[in-house]
Parts: sequence; C-alpha cells; structure tokens
Amino acid sequence: MFQEFIYDIGTKVYFGSGMLSHLGEEIKKYGNKVFFLYKGSYTKTMGIYDLVMQAAKEYNFEVVEFTKVQPNPRHTDVQEGADLCRRENCSVVLAVGGGSAIDSAKVIASGALSDVPVWDLVMGKVPVERSLPLITIPTVAATGSEMNSGAVISNLETKDKQSLRTPSQRPKATFLNPQFTYSVSKYQTACGSVDILCHTIETYFSSDNCMYMLDTFMEGLVRTVLKYAPVACSEPENDEARANLMWAAPWAINDFLRYDKNCNWTIHPIEHEISAYYDITHGLGLAIIMPRYLRHIVDEKSLPRFKRLGVNAFGVDAVLDDRAIAEETIRRIEEFCRDTMGLENHFSALGIDGKDFEEIAGKLTGEDGLRCGGYRTLSRSDIVSILTECL
Amino acid sequence: MFQEFIYDIGTKVYFGSGMLSHLGEEIKKYGNKVFFLYKGSYTKTMGIYDLVMQAAKEYNFEVVEFTKVQPNPRHTDVQEGADLCRRENCSVVLAVGGGSAIDSAKVIASGALSDVPVWDLVMGKVPVERSLPLITIPTVAATGSEMNSGAVISNLETKDKQSLRTPSQRPKATFLNPQFTYSVSKYQTACGSVDILCHTIETYFSSDNCMYMLDTFMEGLVRTVLKYAPVACSEPENDEARANLMWAAPWAINDFLRYDKNCNWTIHPIEHEISAYYDITHGLGLAIIMPRYLRHIVDEKSLPRFKRLGVNAFGVDAVLDDRAIAEETIRRIEEFCRDTMGLENHFSALGIDGKDFEEIAGKLTGEDGLRCGGYRTLSRSDIVSILTECL
Repeated sequence: MFQEFIYDIGTKVYFGSGMLSHLGEEIKKYGNKVFFLYKGSYTKTMGIYDLVMQAAKEYNFEVVEFTKVQPNPRHTDVQEGADLCRRENCSVVLAVGGGSAIDSAKVIASGALSDVPVWDLVMGKVPVERSLPLITIPTVAATGSEMNSGAVISNLETKDKQSLRTPSQRPKATFLNPQFTYSVSKYQTACGSVDILCHTIETYFSSDNCMYMLDTFMEGLVRTVLKYAPVACSEPENDEARANLMWAAPWAINDFLRYDKNCNWTIHPIEHEISAYYDITHGLGLAIIMPRYLRHIVDEKSLPRFKRLGVNAFGVDAVLDDRAIAEETIRRIEEFCRDTMGLENHFSALGIDGKDFEEIAGKLTGEDGLRCGGYRTLSRSDIVSILTECL
Repeated sequence: MFQEFIYDIGTKVYFGSGMLSHLGEEIKKYGNKVFFLYKGSYTKTMGIYDLVMQAAKEYNFEVVEFTKVQPNPRHTDVQEGADLCRRENCSVVLAVGGGSAIDSAKVIASGALSDVPVWDLVMGKVPVERSLPLITIPTVAATGSEMNSGAVISNLETKDKQSLRTPSQRPKATFLNPQFTYSVSKYQTACGSVDILCHTIETYFSSDNCMYMLDTFMEGLVRTVLKYAPVACSEPENDEARANLMWAAPWAINDFLRYDKNCNWTIHPIEHEISAYYDITHGLGLAIIMPRYLRHIVDEKSLPRFKRLGVNAFGVDAVLDDRAIAEETIRRIEEFCRDTMGLENHFSALGIDGKDFEEIAGKLTGEDGLRCGGYRTLSRSDIVSILTECL
C-alpha cells in the first residue's frame, strides 16, 4: 500500500556553534583545491571567511573564490562558476549562504564535470551522473537545500525557474550553526519560515497514501515553525528558536518525509513561475499562494487530511464539522503568514497585475495539467483563478 | 543551550517487499565472502535463505553460514562466530533475524577484526576501532538495531548483560520488509512494540534540555505505536500497521532523537540486569518496569514533561492539574502494556522473587548511583523499591 523506497541520506551534519573546527578535515577528505562560493558580506563579518582561510592553511588546500550569486540564482552566473571550477580543476565545492548560494553550488558541482551548458542539465536534457562533492554552511533556515539533492535555477531570458534533483548533488557534509542566523532580518526569517512550512504542507497534501508515522513528524514540523518563527522574528538571538528552525529546515525537505508516496508539489512550481516573471522573494510568493491553493483543493477527499492537520498541528477544535475545520486551518495558515510573519498577502501590493497569468498557467500545465498531489489535476483555468485570487 | 552534535547516520534503507533484489549488489560492494548469520526456521520458510543463495550465485560471492544465536545473545556464541568469521576471512557480515541476531552480528563484525576476547570489547576494556561492514534484514519491529551502532550481549557466567556502542558497527544497509513480520506472534509483536515505546519514552525523559522539534517527533512515534501495535496484534497481516511499526523501530533509537542532549537511559539498564538474572524477554521486562519507574520520577521538575507527553501523545485532557495528567499518562502506559498488549504486569507471575534485587541494584549503581536522565540519580534503595513494586 505504501510506495517502496530507498532511504539514502548520507549527509553528515555538524550542529552547533563550535563545529567549524571540523571544516578543514571534511574538505581535505575530498582533495586539495576547493571551489569556495559565498554570498554576502556576512560571510566575512561573521568570521566564516577567516575560518575557511585558516582551515586552508592548516590543512594545506588551495581556495578558488567565487561570489557571483544573487537571489533566484541565474543560469548565466552558474555557468560562469562551473567554467571556472572546471578550469581550475577544483576537487570539492564549499558553499556559504542561503538557498541561492547552495543551489548555485550544486549545479556548479555538476556542471564542472560535464561538457554541456548547465541550463541543459537543469532542463533535464542531459542527465547528471556525477557531481563534485559538496560541503555547505547555510546562513539561513529556509530552503533545506543543505541536506537534499535539489537545486532551483532561473533563466531570465526564457522566464523559467526550474529545479534539478539528482542524488550526486546531495551535500556530503553540512555545518549548521544557529548563531549564523542571528543576523537574518525579520523579513528573511519570515520568508524562510514560510518556506519550511510550505515544504511540509505540500508533502502532507501530496497523497492520501501517507505513512501515519511520517504524518506525525510533519505535524511536528508545522508545530515547530508555528512556535519558533515568531520568537526568531522578535528575538533574533534566541538560540532555542534559531536552533529549532535550523534543524527543521532540512528535515522538511530532505526526502525522508516523501519517500513513501507519490509526491508532486504544486505551490512551489506555481511560485517558481511567479518568481521567474517578477523576481520576488520565494517565501513571500509562497505566503500569498499557499492559502488560495489550499482553499482550491478542499473537497470530500481532502477533508479528513485537513482535519488531521488542523487538529494536530494548529490546535483547531476537533468538534467542529470537517469543512469548518478545513476552513479554519487555512485561515490560520493565512493569518500566520500575513499577521504573525508580517508578509504581504496580495500580489497587487508587489506591483503584479494579472496580465501574464494565462501565459504562466500555460507554462505550468502543458497538455495534462499540473499534477496536484493526488487530490486534483489542476487545469489552466484552475491556475489562473488561484493566481487571480492572489491579486 | 543544546548540546552540539554530529549527525552521522549513513545506513541505506531498502523499504518494501521487493527490495531484496538489491541484496546481491549491496553485499558485493564489500567483498566476495559473506558471513551469513541467521536465526530461526522462518529465514527458510519466508524464502530469505533462498534469496541469499540466489544472490550469491548471481553475484558470485561465497557464503559462510552461522546459526548459533539465542534470545539474550550469549558472549560464548558471539565468540564462536567471531572466530569462525576471522578464520574464514569473511569481508562482510549479513544478519537475518531479530535484535538478538543483529546484535550478535555487530559484535562478530567487530570481534573478527580484533585479537582480544569479544567480552573484553563488550565490557569496554579494549576499544573497538573498526568492524566488518554489516548488512541486516530484520524480521521483527523492535530493537531498532538495524540502523544504530549498539549491541547488547549477555554473559550468563557473570550475570551481566552489557551494551556496546561504536560507530563502526552501524549497518551499511538494511532491508525492511513489513511482510517478513506478518508471522511474528502476538506476544513478540507486543514485546517489540513495548520496546519501541520504551526507547522513545526513555529518550523523552532523558533531559529537560530537549529540542522541541525532536519532542514532537517522539510524541509522533508514541502515537504511532499506540495506534498500530494493537492492529498488528489482532490483524498480523495488516501492512499499514506492520509498515508503520517497522519504520518507527529504527527511528526511535538510531540516535537522531538523542544527539542534542545528555541522554542516559534507566529502564533499559535495569531491565538488562533482570534479563541477565532471569532470562526473560526484554520487552516483557520493560513493560513491567516502565510504569513503576515513571511513577518514581514524578516531581515538580518532570511534571511539565509528563504533561506534554500525556496531552500530545496519549490524548490526556489538558485541563486536569499537572499531577493528575502525569498519573493518568502513566496509567495509560501501564494499561497499554498490560491490557492492550496483553503482557504480564508482575515479576511474581514470571517466578521472580525479590531475593536478588539488592545484588542487582548494587551492580547498577556503583558509587555514584545510576544516572537517571537528568531528573534523578537513582540510589541503590531507589532501584530496590522500583523492582519491589514490580513483584
């Protein structure tokens, strides 16, 4: 009744503030020349840059620096990185930053070992069979890219934002230091928290054939985000909050929760198109789309699942009727994103009007419609109406 | 505030009924001669034996068979296995069976590469630095040994039952097929389920500095056992129940839930001594000791934790006062073990009287008393009174 699966998550995780002392030994396992990609001045102000250079000295490896990374990472930058990495003959990639940095590093690690353009890899035209080993130091709790095999890259020319998942891109080691996230702004903390929440909820609603044990873990992740995201926003140096969010992020999306089921996400692909067209922050787009999408899939089949999520994770009163529980659950998700996290709740406030929605819906559906997690196959007009409700 | 940790759980898990087709390729990764330890006629009746032999033919590796395993595995049998494994120059160990088989295989895998008696390894007199790679096929959901690094071995001469944990003993690959557990008896299903429950509860009560996210996962594991253990007992071929229990077992004890805290168990060490003296089934001993132990640690400090566990995992009414919630939670645990699982609730019914309790308590405490998870350091007389309440 469950899907058979192979659980294979070998990422070694160093968790805590003193763990970067192991960085040199981890890098050295994989060679003598590291491609060091980092983003933002915080890599230097937080002392990570110096720690890398110190490890290079102590463990005697060369460092090739690369800093061309921007939000919604561009395939052109990634191509440049892959070319440099190949030319310099690096044997291991180290990424410091948020999801953009880590996703870029993954495709650079794959592209460096390939002789086709990286965009062909991202679009799946040529399969990725191997990648350079990757080590990551995330500086925000959000995408969970630090423990999974996926990367999302944007092509502004074709207005595509596409994800590439391949086992060889899963990081070998990751250093999670909650203190590195103390300086993450309230806005980015909110966007990252919504991303974790959305990963969990998309997986929760992917299929009705879920393993109960994994359902309970997903409900736990939702409770963790609801409890600690507001604390991290109001007390940025609260270690308990930052640590819980930092450990929740990879577990929401490292595959553990989705191995047992057919798991097609919907909110993320829709948001990726929105980001590709309007270059908005990923988590903000999710915050706007998620409640509208969820209202769209309320039906007899999804009601029991909404009920379980609402009662177990959001504390909705179990005595209400099922439809009222579903509505209240979605209302609380929307309230969390808009009021508790303080994020915009309408596309119009971001200057987005509806003129591209037909085109976007067309990109998402193709002939069959986008698969919507077993509950519903979305048609072009479904997507247009979801997006229109976001205006 | 949390303990720093290194998460390193590299066991590859093949989950499902058709996954043994990968057995040959997994074994072959590690060499050409496998030490094949199995227990019980079910290895043959369930067709596992034939699958191993077929893989040996197809992948061209030799098989050295060993079947000397009994419940509460004896150090003498393990010694014999290690000697044979070394003499035959095997390069990989395959274990089929329950916790006894897998634990024996772990110490055989370590002992084969060592020149000291295995009991010296178990007692920690000589540290284990390496072990042969181990692959496991558990046939019961219980000890979770299939994804962790620990093994528990008994010495009937000295009446010791001791556990050895060392990273090199963590299995490289594990095949979990819920169908293999269809034929597990109601009694063994009950004992295994209590073992999973107890692993979770001991970890939950190990410290008050737990990461909330991991608390929610533990509460989920408890809910999973409460939901599915009765189903597996009454409908032994219910795949949903068997699959949930089979996946819950390793996660209750693969270290994920305990990395963040000082985690000293108490019920298990006490039960190990009881098993060493009276050779009773491990899960049965736990079922008897667990509620008495928990009653013993109810105090102002543990009340909030009992409350969280009771409300979130056992559905105890949150409006009761804290002490009433703790008592009700323990009552439900006892009721689950005794009434729902149908296990004996008194040592006296197993022919155990109290005459050895002073000696047992002396073994457990030493000078400092047994560390009881941060809540309490148990004295000799504490242990004697817990055991006496079990009579």
